[in-house]
Amino acid sequence: RARDGKRIPPPVVHYHMNNLTSSANPLENRETILILTPLARFYQEYWDNLLKLSYPHELITLAFIIPKNRDGNAATAELQERITKTQKTGPENERFASIIIERQDFEAPLSSQSETERHKMENQKARRAAMSKARNSLLFTTLGPSTSWVLWIDSDIIETPKTLIEDLASHDKDIIVPNCFQRFQDDKTKEDKERPYDFNSWQDSQIAKDLAANMGPDDILLEGYAEMATYRTLLAYMYKVGGDPRQEVNLDGVGGTALMVKADVHRDGAMFPPFAFYHLIETEGFAKMAKRLGKDSFGLPNYKVYHYNE
Amino acid sequence: RARDGKRIPPPVVHYHMNNLTSSANPLENRETILILTPLARFYQEYWDNLLKLSYPHELITLAFIIPKNRDGNAATAELQERITKTQKTGPENERFASIIIERQDFEAPLSSQSETERHKMENQKARRAAMSKARNSLLFTTLGPSTSWVLWIDSDIIETPKTLIEDLASHDKDIIVPNCFQRFQDDKTKEDKERPYDFNSWQDSQIAKDLAANMGPDDILLEGYAEMATYRTLLAYMYKVGGDPRQEVNLDGVGGTALMVKADVHRDGAMFPPFAFYHLIETEGFAKMAKRLGKDSFGLPNYKVYHYNE
Ligand SMILES: Nc1nc2c(ncn2[C@@H]2O[C@H](COP(=O)(O)OP(=O)(O)O)[C@@H](O)[C@H]2O)c(=O)[nH]1
Ligand SMILES: Nc1nc2c(ncn2[C@@H]2O[C@H](COP(=O)(O)OP(=O)(O)O)[C@@H](O)[C@H]2O)c(=O)[nH]1
Ligand SMILES: [Mn+2]
Ligand SMILES: [Mn+2]
Repeated sequence: RARDGKRIPPPVVHYHMNNLTSSANPLENRETILILTPLARFYQEYWDNLLKLSYPHELITLAFIIPKNRDGNAATAELQERITKTQKTGPENERFASIIIERQDFEAPLSSQSETERHKMENQKARRAAMSKARNSLLFTTLGPSTSWVLWIDSDIIETPKTLIEDLASHDKDIIVPNCFQRFQDDKTKEDKERPYDFNSWQDSQIAKDLAANMGPDDILLEGYAEMATYRTLLAYMYKVGGDPRQEVNLDGVGGTALMVKADVHRDGAMFPPFAFYHLIETEGFAKMAKRLGKDSFGLPNYKVYHYNE
Repeated sequence: RARDGKRIPPPVVHYHMNNLTSSANPLENRETILILTPLARFYQEYWDNLLKLSYPHELITLAFIIPKNRDGNAATAELQERITKTQKTGPENERFASIIIERQDFEAPLSSQSETERHKMENQKARRAAMSKARNSLLFTTLGPSTSWVLWIDSDIIETPKTLIEDLASHDKDIIVPNCFQRFQDDKTKEDKERPYDFNSWQDSQIAKDLAANMGPDDILLEGYAEMATYRTLLAYMYKVGGDPRQEVNLDGVGGTALMVKADVHRDGAMFPPFAFYHLIETEGFAKMAKRLGKDSFGLPNYKVYHYNE
């Protein structure tokens, strides 16, 4: 308000969206990245990993959507503490352009967040519909007219190459996903090993198409369940020791553990269907919807990120 | 930047989305309205009508998406001039909270914007796909975590009751549309008359469902074309002289000339499909998508707004 008490509205803001790039060389064009994380639990390793990302943090905005329940309150408190430290007293080059935390207004559909409970087949539809709505709400409210890329990272992704953003962008694809693995210790040999984690990145199969063709309109196909063998080709199993980390493969479904998207794909309308869309839901439905918008998805079989192991 | 040249990022912003209301009494709750207009041409009467809206302008944000072509440049210049006048020197109560203009980065799919050319059946799919992308882009980049309502108004809607926002909100519906008419002069009698304009608000029919069932996956149903008689019940024809302006009817498809939406419907993921979605596209596809999200659409047969007559 001015001194005479009058309300002085801000001047009109103009955006020339055709000058905005999402290129193989985002740094050169000073492209802005929006990192989006639906967060039910806070992991220190996730935060540490974010801080190490080499892409200039002043070009990165972080946004979180966190459930409004007891776990969510605890996660918010932890996150807020790390943010304050980084943004106020941390090294200048670690500070992000801006950070948004949204507390979500709907309940988590499952009573327990344990890995076993989360992955039960009968829980998938409700759970992934809720996840879709959380992702959409976060996306619709934080994507701006000058965002070049959206990088989705789950809060339990605890290890990525520090050049993740530059590496993924360099492929210049509308949608691209790394291969998501999980480290674990062999029970018997006590050896450190790793195994594939995210089964939502895949190439379609005739068997899956036939299954879909015989389903009710609201039924969804799920991946990684013996009861529903789809014989899709999973990105998870395309990994080869010593394979080229730059090798690309076409995908029909993508996972959201780490998922890089040119912002225009979302702006054209691609979201995470919270309903059966061609018998797909959430991130897998997103890839299908993007396809219908003329945007293709790719995976990097030999470029890995790691999921937390409970 | 601080005096020592250090970058001082803004503090983290928190949003408690469960405290946000979209109620029958928006004024009481000081709910914010986002008015969205895809704009190819500027009409003085549209702007005059906006200025007269009685809902407090300090709770209204306006956002426009305008094609990046010659017509769009002219429209932008006119709009900018009116904005400057209103926001800087106009009466305080006419000033809006904020205004955003986006110039869009894709070409209009038609060479001519004449009413005849726009309404040719063979032009509908490409035209409405382009309109969908324009609407999505505007929506995804301007919807915020504290928006309560989204009011879509086309730039050629030149007359509405000045209590439009209060009236539509008072029905407390997820999605609600007024009845869109057009004033004209009878060629022979020179009498002032009016006729229905927007045929995209309708109740579905078995014939339309049968037509859809026999279509290719990418084909769309269109309304208002003799070549494709759908026998749907059109909101346009439900108007009755002296009818109750508060009368509500259920709808399966909605038009976008004037369209009021609780912001959560969009945040959950409802957008304007630029592809055939259950053989529907754009605003009609939006109603169907919202339905799949559990959100119903309503129309007001006897509450009218008016479209420009070329
Ligand atoms: N906002 C929100 N985030 C959630 C919810 N449930 C899980 N998440 C987060 O969403 C991401 C994916 O969920 P997760 O349970 O790890 O999926 P999984 O690894 O596929 O079993 C993680 O970042 C979770 O922290 C929820 O109900 N609301
Ligand atoms: N941004 C944008 N707006 C458009 C374009 N074409 C039309 N519009 C606007 O979109 C709205 C609907 O278009 P209009 O041609 O009036 O549709 P009709 O009344 O159904 O024939 C109006 O506000 C137009 O000014 C376009 O290519 N880009
Ligand atoms: Mn996880
Ligand atoms: Mn029009």
